[in-house]
Amino acid sequence: MAIITVVGAGVMGSALTFPLSDNGHQVRLVGTHLDNEIIGSCLDRRYHPRLKRQIAENVTPYYSHDLAEAMRGAEVIVLGVNSRGVHWAAEHIGPHLVPGQIIHMVTKGMETIDGKLTILPDVVHDNLPEPIRDQVHYSAIGGPCIAGELAARHHSAVVYCSRNPEILPRLRSYFGTPYYHIWTSTDLVGVEVCVALKNPYALAAGLAAGVLEKQGGADESGAQMHNYAAAIFAQGLAETAIIVKALGGGMETVYSLPGAGDLFVTTQGGRNSRMGRLLGMGLAYSDAVEEMPNETIEGVDAVVSIMPGVKAMIERGEIPADSVPLLTEMHRILTRNQPIDFDFNSFFSKLPFTPPEPSKA
Amino acid sequence: MAIITVVGAGVMGSALTFPLSDNGHQVRLVGTHLDNEIIGSCLDRRYHPRLKRQIAENVTPYYSHDLAEAMRGAEVIVLGVNSRGVHWAAEHIGPHLVPGQIIHMVTKGMETIDGKLTILPDVVHDNLPEPIRDQVHYSAIGGPCIAGELAARHHSAVVYCSRNPEILPRLRSYFGTPYYHIWTSTDLVGVEVCVALKNPYALAAGLAAGVLEKQGGADESGAQMHNYAAAIFAQGLAETAIIVKALGGGMETVYSLPGAGDLFVTTQGGRNSRMGRLLGMGLAYSDAVEEMPNETIEGVDAVVSIMPGVKAMIERGEIPADSVPLLTEMHRILTRNQPIDFDFNSFFSKLPFTPPEPSKA
Repeated sequence: MAIITVVGAGVMGSALTFPLSDNGHQVRLVGTHLDNEIIGSCLDRRYHPRLKRQIAENVTPYYSHDLAEAMRGAEVIVLGVNSRGVHWAAEHIGPHLVPGQIIHMVTKGMETIDGKLTILPDVVHDNLPEPIRDQVHYSAIGGPCIAGELAARHHSAVVYCSRNPEILPRLRSYFGTPYYHIWTSTDLVGVEVCVALKNPYALAAGLAAGVLEKQGGADESGAQMHNYAAAIFAQGLAETAIIVKALGGGMETVYSLPGAGDLFVTTQGGRNSRMGRLLGMGLAYSDAVEEMPNETIEGVDAVVSIMPGVKAMIERGEIPADSVPLLTEMHRILTRNQPIDFDFNSFFSKLPFTPPEPSKA
Repeated sequence: MAIITVVGAGVMGSALTFPLSDNGHQVRLVGTHLDNEIIGSCLDRRYHPRLKRQIAENVTPYYSHDLAEAMRGAEVIVLGVNSRGVHWAAEHIGPHLVPGQIIHMVTKGMETIDGKLTILPDVVHDNLPEPIRDQVHYSAIGGPCIAGELAARHHSAVVYCSRNPEILPRLRSYFGTPYYHIWTSTDLVGVEVCVALKNPYALAAGLAAGVLEKQGGADESGAQMHNYAAAIFAQGLAETAIIVKALGGGMETVYSLPGAGDLFVTTQGGRNSRMGRLLGMGLAYSDAVEEMPNETIEGVDAVVSIMPGVKAMIERGEIPADSVPLLTEMHRILTRNQPIDFDFNSFFSKLPFTPPEPSKA
């Protein structure tokens, strides 16, 4: 049995303690400085207030000031912080890492560093102390996995990925259970790009519900706006394919669990969808944010951190200028407080399709 | 302005009369022998009872016995019958076709003919009288388009496809409107395989809701079964990719509107999802059918008509034996009245992923 330390007691990091505990591992759940209330509840009542569930048997909760102790002897450090917490996490785990440990990323996102779109495992690498950064292993999780459902031990199918294939069977054996199905892949870039982009595109698909509400909801025929959402879903996946391909990832990653599957599950609810709905109703982003106080909307953070890197790719000619109109539109809405103004006809221009004629509106 | 004749007054064929009418075309809506009530209502009150909406201005309804008259002078014959009606339609339109007319297929599905998986435009071709079958053009529609939303003039994005690129701009100009966005493609096989397979795979994704209900619904944490549905969604798309590739279609078709987009919209409700839910709750197929009397479940028909062709492809070595476990499982459930018994670990075996170890259940 192994010692596995989860850093970040949000829903996803905490949910991973369930299969680990079921497999009999010694699990340590460490809150960040923002998780004190959660850790307090886990210590007092063994109840996770955000998962709304008792924590599993073999799990020991730790406050952040006990991080060093919690990391001692761990084979795997799971990073379960949100995308804003990655630098904090790298800074705090850095001093306590020992050679051979695996850093397993739950956190989704990408950052633009010196004009280069950078996946989060590489961001963590670059932010660790020099002596240790090349002596630990990096891996990440992609695929459709709503945390509460994993904690409820409902069937969930995901992909664990690393550039180092040697560590993957070990990770799979630690985490895999009869309800948590783990495929492994060395397409780290493909998986990480897919899972980072799912949040902005799921947010975009969420616009449809708001647009319908703004029009007064369904008419007497009951017509919804699923076609609108589906066009965005398809364009989001097609833009994902363009960026994945340009960065060297595989198309199979796009049209399976990490791409299509994860985008699908992310459109089925959650904070991105709620933000999308508010924007679709016509709220400016600055007003929509006030309706969701104290909530991190990963889709918003992702657009802001990814768009500069995508623009740089366009400037370097790595992808065509007009190949990501949906991401560009989301960036405009979210950073300039402007109302949504899609040109559906701008979609799919890089596929072997002939586009619609200019809109006759 | 052109004369366009829609054969089949179901929801999708009838919905297409809205953009056609908005473009000022002369539209003729012909019911099949099963549509007499609909046509009667359209004639008496100009109200389409299934679309729950007044029919558009330039639309003239016809009973099936007036098919010959309704087809006279038409540039396009839209086939809006369901998949069971394709042979009826070919037989009845055949005698009235004239060279140069376009047969534009709304109907989705594939048939197995002499061990060959055959797309419906080719089935229609083969069932038309010899003298005319090679003197008319064939095209089809793919992509996410719920009929009621198109009739409500909500944004809908689709792909029109034909092996003959010359007819596509004309079709796009007839049907395209500021709300009905039409891309064109010559990947007829890719589009038709995607749209035929979306029904069985959407039905399969619908199982998740039923499985949750069978377990007593969400527990106190509120956990749903979206991960389960998303794994099926992803596997459905991956199997679609395998079959499309083997038949010579393009991957871009799979990860954009015809594949991912149409599968997405089909999971958002409708008869396939309802049947999936009933099967997920544990009903045998023969019992589930009785809960949905007089309804055509396209996903069921599709599995039955497609599976023999897929099996033949496996026997000929065109696709690997274990590459379509989800379709195989749906066939077992639907034709043998057996309970669902997924092995999630059998999924994604043909992707560059390493599968989970055998389940430890």
